[in-house]
Amino acid sequence: MVPPAITPSYARELALQSRSAATSLACLNAARKNAWLKRLAADLRTAAASIESANDMDLQAAQAAGLSSAMLDRLKLNRERVESLAKAVEAVVTLPDPVGEVIAGERRPNGLQVNRVRVPLGVVLFIYESRPNVTIDAATLCVKSGNAVILRGGSESIRTNLVLGDLIAGSLRAEGLPEHAVQLVRSTDRAIVGDLLSMGKLIDVAIPRGGRSLIERVTREATMPVIKHFDGICHVYLDASADVRMSTDIVINSKCQRPGVCNAAETLLMHRDAAADFWPALARTLQDLGVQLRCCPESLAAISGGVAASDQDFHTEHLDLILNVRVVDSLDQAISHIRTFGSAHTDAIVTNCLAAAARFEAEVDSAAVVINASTRFNDGGELGLGAEIGISTDRFHARGPCGLREMTSYKYIIRGSGQVRG
Amino acid sequence: MVPPAITPSYARELALQSRSAATSLACLNAARKNAWLKRLAADLRTAAASIESANDMDLQAAQAAGLSSAMLDRLKLNRERVESLAKAVEAVVTLPDPVGEVIAGERRPNGLQVNRVRVPLGVVLFIYESRPNVTIDAATLCVKSGNAVILRGGSESIRTNLVLGDLIAGSLRAEGLPEHAVQLVRSTDRAIVGDLLSMGKLIDVAIPRGGRSLIERVTREATMPVIKHFDGICHVYLDASADVRMSTDIVINSKCQRPGVCNAAETLLMHRDAAADFWPALARTLQDLGVQLRCCPESLAAISGGVAASDQDFHTEHLDLILNVRVVDSLDQAISHIRTFGSAHTDAIVTNCLAAAARFEAEVDSAAVVINASTRFNDGGELGLGAEIGISTDRFHARGPCGLREMTSYKYIIRGSGQVRG
Repeated sequence: MVPPAITPSYARELALQSRSAATSLACLNAARKNAWLKRLAADLRTAAASIESANDMDLQAAQAAGLSSAMLDRLKLNRERVESLAKAVEAVVTLPDPVGEVIAGERRPNGLQVNRVRVPLGVVLFIYESRPNVTIDAATLCVKSGNAVILRGGSESIRTNLVLGDLIAGSLRAEGLPEHAVQLVRSTDRAIVGDLLSMGKLIDVAIPRGGRSLIERVTREATMPVIKHFDGICHVYLDASADVRMSTDIVINSKCQRPGVCNAAETLLMHRDAAADFWPALARTLQDLGVQLRCCPESLAAISGGVAASDQDFHTEHLDLILNVRVVDSLDQAISHIRTFGSAHTDAIVTNCLAAAARFEAEVDSAAVVINASTRFNDGGELGLGAEIGISTDRFHARGPCGLREMTSYKYIIRGSGQVRG
Repeated sequence: MVPPAITPSYARELALQSRSAATSLACLNAARKNAWLKRLAADLRTAAASIESANDMDLQAAQAAGLSSAMLDRLKLNRERVESLAKAVEAVVTLPDPVGEVIAGERRPNGLQVNRVRVPLGVVLFIYESRPNVTIDAATLCVKSGNAVILRGGSESIRTNLVLGDLIAGSLRAEGLPEHAVQLVRSTDRAIVGDLLSMGKLIDVAIPRGGRSLIERVTREATMPVIKHFDGICHVYLDASADVRMSTDIVINSKCQRPGVCNAAETLLMHRDAAADFWPALARTLQDLGVQLRCCPESLAAISGGVAASDQDFHTEHLDLILNVRVVDSLDQAISHIRTFGSAHTDAIVTNCLAAAARFEAEVDSAAVVINASTRFNDGGELGLGAEIGISTDRFHARGPCGLREMTSYKYIIRGSGQVRG
């Protein structure tokens, strides 16, 4: 596979084409966008074999390069996964079009009708690693929300992405949508990312999804706003009044149900009274599930088989079956720990005390504050947003899961009958 | 006046103190914030004489430095203006507290109650020029919306600002609010702006308000998100069906009511039919009001006393009694002109044609699209937002006037009864 010749103007051309596509996309009805989504789903099914064979080449190259089996699994896009992907595309058809929604409207005393109406953000630069299904997810979410998107996937999935990119382009043409609505960067040259990040006048937002170094690079170089998808150092705090059974269920689910994702718990905080009641039994259950426990001195002394936690552990997103454990004196100490060590992503309390729940809600400043449920619920699908393009750890523009609405801005429509200002 | 010693740690100390104040402010009830606002209004009235005398010194220095009379007028803060300022502070008392507002709430199928609740942005860095009343406006809007703010005013108003800063600090202490809720940079050293802009981990947003070079510097150096308040190259388009009287009123008001502000019109576009009907009479009216007309060949030929417009004129925010004029063939050409030359700030159409109004609304992508009213209405007070901290020309996070709500983010509160993810 020979990559296309990348000149300094390649990125600029991409950005200009996207800009122009964005203008048309902004005025497109949902019916047209949905027709494209349906065709794309059908085309994915038809092309399943060629997607799988391109993906096989990516997998072979990745295996030769020594990628871990977890990474290989993320990279894999076989027939079953293509079918799931087609179903995910069809699910976006059912989501309401955010564009044109009147967010607020008011008749002013002078008779002006002032409406705030949702509009697309414009051109999105989406930079991601590994999983090639994200190529399709991002394309569908951006177009459904009226945005043009430039997709820059990981080098390890370039062969799969080129096939998917051609499929998307073909379906756009077939449905008469702007052909540059979705553009794949057809090269793995890293310089092009820098070129694109310098184009703040043409590109409205950059969304990086991947490891820390990718996100830091994008944040440093971007001349446009960035929606970051950063660390999830998530906590579960068991209050003095926490129910044993509920605590056990929530801790296990938060830690073990899918340990490699950002909304999995990394740290268990327990009020001393809760710890006295049920920490040894909870610890055994966790250890039976293969969880390594990194404990504060007090929690370590009460069990066997734990290891001592370092300060660094409490700052770490393990993304693995490792749980930091700390006994605290009070709700205050729990909140203070979360403020110091957390990443403002997702933090949960298990409690039966109304006052404790209210204080936790008010004082823990995280994208998702969870009362008596698993941290795993901070997810677009679970929170009712439908599909999501990522979970923002920023507090500017969008926070938490970013669905279709989070991919929009708004404008004021002011309708009068000749009003002038006095 | 000896400025305080500025060490590299000065900016960091300011930012850390603001960060800590922001944590307390986020949980403060509106009653407490309103009590402070009332005291500040009273303190402003009490201190009117000392404010005026500090302002006199600023005015003398500015006069000696040769500032224009328009600049001197902007700088001036006499007793009458202090009284207006106190009234503006009292007006903020009446605005609803945005913090804690439930923006959306839903019961999920599994029984989770998912609410999206408004929270402050955190720490705001506000950098502005000239008008010292902005010091009070920004302080009151930030604190009412639960944000801590670092204020960096212009060097020409430093003496006035130091008095206002002391007044604010005293009123915060007297009401028991965090004393670092509002911090004034007590130096005119420009290096400190760079230091503050580098602190993206401590400061949540930078808001520059002033000339182009200030905004460009902030955009370039900021490591946190920026809400820009950039050019207003605003248009009024007179459609073929435009009413003569309404057109005249709206053009005059948009251009002349306050030509030095961002939502004043810079360019008049006229459909050929409208121009034929009433351009010569409208031109005379505008000229009688002292407006210089910079015209396309067609509009120039129809009047006397106009001058030929250059391409550059159509790209220029004159902020003066100068109006660019162009005759167009169609609505399409008007929209295309606005896309090419406009700054997506405020654009108006005068029309009696429903189809033209609908297309203008949909296809003109400006913060405010105005139908049959003056461009001057794109303003927080006029649109019902109450006071505003600026008019954003960005499309990310906030667009158009930024009132209290635009100074907030949100978090998800997820309330369950033991739910775990399957």
